Amino acid sequence: MADNGISRRRLIGTAGATGLALGAAGGAAGYAAAPSDASGASSTGRAASLTSLGTDEVMFHGKHQPGITTPVQSRGHLVAFDLAAGAGRKEAAALLRRWSATAERLMAGKATTGEDTDVARDAGPSSLTVTFGFGHSFFGRTGLEKQRPSALDPLPDFSSDHLDKARSDGDLWVQIGANDPLVAFHALRAIQKEAGDAARVRWQMNGFNRSPGATAQPMTTRNLMGQIDGSNNPKPSQDDFDRRIYVPASGAAQGPSWMAGGSYVVVRRIRMLLDDWEKLGVKDQEAVIGRHKSDGSPLTGGMETTEPKLEKAGADGKYVIALNAHARITRPDQNGGSAMLRRPFSYHDGFDKGGEPDAGLLFVCWQADPLRGFVPVQRKLDRGDALSEFIRHEASGLFAVPGGAAKGEYVGQRLLEG
Amino acid sequence: MADNGISRRRLIGTAGATGLALGAAGGAAGYAAAPSDASGASSTGRAASLTSLGTDEVMFHGKHQPGITTPVQSRGHLVAFDLAAGAGRKEAAALLRRWSATAERLMAGKATTGEDTDVARDAGPSSLTVTFGFGHSFFGRTGLEKQRPSALDPLPDFSSDHLDKARSDGDLWVQIGANDPLVAFHALRAIQKEAGDAARVRWQMNGFNRSPGATAQPMTTRNLMGQIDGSNNPKPSQDDFDRRIYVPASGAAQGPSWMAGGSYVVVRRIRMLLDDWEKLGVKDQEAVIGRHKSDGSPLTGGMETTEPKLEKAGADGKYVIALNAHARITRPDQNGGSAMLRRPFSYHDGFDKGGEPDAGLLFVCWQADPLRGFVPVQRKLDRGDALSEFIRHEASGLFAVPGGAAKGEYVGQRLLEG
Repeated sequence: MADNGISRRRLIGTAGATGLALGAAGGAAGYAAAPSDASGASSTGRAASLTSLGTDEVMFHGKHQPGITTPVQSRGHLVAFDLAAGAGRKEAAALLRRWSATAERLMAGKATTGEDTDVARDAGPSSLTVTFGFGHSFFGRTGLEKQRPSALDPLPDFSSDHLDKARSDGDLWVQIGANDPLVAFHALRAIQKEAGDAARVRWQMNGFNRSPGATAQPMTTRNLMGQIDGSNNPKPSQDDFDRRIYVPASGAAQGPSWMAGGSYVVVRRIRMLLDDWEKLGVKDQEAVIGRHKSDGSPLTGGMETTEPKLEKAGADGKYVIALNAHARITRPDQNGGSAMLRRPFSYHDGFDKGGEPDAGLLFVCWQADPLRGFVPVQRKLDRGDALSEFIRHEASGLFAVPGGAAKGEYVGQRLLEG
Repeated sequence: MADNGISRRRLIGTAGATGLALGAAGGAAGYAAAPSDASGASSTGRAASLTSLGTDEVMFHGKHQPGITTPVQSRGHLVAFDLAAGAGRKEAAALLRRWSATAERLMAGKATTGEDTDVARDAGPSSLTVTFGFGHSFFGRTGLEKQRPSALDPLPDFSSDHLDKARSDGDLWVQIGANDPLVAFHALRAIQKEAGDAARVRWQMNGFNRSPGATAQPMTTRNLMGQIDGSNNPKPSQDDFDRRIYVPASGAAQGPSWMAGGSYVVVRRIRMLLDDWEKLGVKDQEAVIGRHKSDGSPLTGGMETTEPKLEKAGADGKYVIALNAHARITRPDQNGGSAMLRRPFSYHDGFDKGGEPDAGLLFVCWQADPLRGFVPVQRKLDRGDALSEFIRHEASGLFAVPGGAAKGEYVGQRLLEG
């Protein structure tokens, strides 16, 4: 009864053509579009978000996997799997082949092969993306140790870590994003079903962001502390954007060749201690961050895109942006030019017994090399970030996300059949 | 620093005017609009959903509270509070006054009074609704036993109940819905903050529905079993719609006069056993429900709005719609004409240790009298619904939701100052 092979997109074709007149930035949000999780910096990139209704489709095939520079969606699922006992390289290859085929179908708005749950029925692709990664433990379990990139070496311990191992790491990692929660859930369930006997869920987290259209253009998203998030993000218009985010095709120093076009993702579940944070008041919050809360502009003036004037002192002789301000510590030129692309989701899993929301950020950041991206920044934050007393890192993961699959190929094929 | 008094709507005025050309059904979705949680029955009512972008505003003041016939939003929070020890009628009255003022401001896209968290900053009202109700225990704690409606008498026990008392009942209940998850979270946090020392959170649940624009018009939402939900909903176009859903202004048989224009809400957290359900296959699923999964039409033919032919037999001599089919048991004319307006959210709180999603339906239904709405239907379901082996009622609440506040009034004022 499932309409396999029939694109759900066809079902909403009428709406796209006549029901809703889309704005100037019509058309599908291809995954080469600019990230919308950054600040107001990139209004041309952002424009795509406002048209992200059901008909928007992201391409599965390409040089890079989707879900990295795709405008961030309003609903996200992160899920890690461990290979089942007895499953090795062969089973992993078959699994990635199944997962890739499913991702391609669902991202095009089609039903799954086999019996579909119908949860996404009637809906368009809704900018669905499915992204696959491999954890450190994957390579031992599949006899592929020699192919394990050194970039997957465990992250150093940070003093602020309160990590729950059961919600950290994993052999395989899948990121699902969509602008419709039922489309996202449908994909999550389909991916889980395709795992079959080869892998089981290790941990799973749900996140969200601004809905397309809730704010004016350029679309602005905030985290649950009320801050504009990702002001420091590298911009796709920068010459060195690709070099910072993606592993180059050549250059052995960058790791194994199967990672060409890939990226490394650091995932941190960062609990926000909102009761303490909100007691601070806006003035003190701004001192902690080093930026104005209203528009993300540095305390030294300008707009969100203006460079902070770190040397500027106030009438009291002190730095306007304090030495421990988050914006100072995370500023790329304070970290040897390191940079990462933040593409987070917020999370909220109800209230704890003390009446405080179990809420915060599913921090997801992308880089060509974690040792030049996340690690040096987090080391500095760990030593002196004024924000650290208001957050708690509760889970952590680091995954190698290979380049995109060419037509007829599946994600990770160059590793698993190399 | 919070821009109190400045409507956030102004901030996105440009987008509304030029950035996005809305379709034919422009304008705010007033709360007299038809529910969108029902089937494809009411396409004129549904049309409003597709324009539910940031600028859409629902009115706080009116004959009825918002959030009952408002088109269902993509994000929802349900939260129950208990009055603090020592808090009585006076504190409750002050609380409802504060809550009403906050709801009115936020639904108009304004910041809170006092320091705002800024989480909803930049966003429009996004169809935010905030709805308040009183539980059975509220009346004892405030010395208002004489004003307690008999309709609030505890629901009977059902054999399929597996109720968690800690996530059931409560003195006060608040339903928050919005088409943007940050707008909804902002309101939840503001409501919690306003509770101050007068009340503390008893339980809280998060839900979701289809995003506006994800499907064609008429907008269709499904539950996590893949079913179109609410096909039996009474339609606002029906003569007796108001009589079924709202307590009339006069008629002592209907309960105390302070409930005029109000409604009773039954809230059930219904876990779906999705692994079992999905193993069934579509044919067997359709036999359980008595409707086609694809479009919600009865197995006896027609469209979703077609009346099921309950007497029709198949070639095998058996009823086409089985005696225990969900659609037969819940059909209004099988229950003395009882009817309720279902307006649910789906929920998904990660996976349990067995690898099954902790997911299902936050069933929310509205009626003038639970003894003629929810109770008789649930009694019949309890005895012989084929669906019952695939679901589990895990939490329950019943609340008296008074009529809407007139200008200058707060919700519940006629009770608390009566």
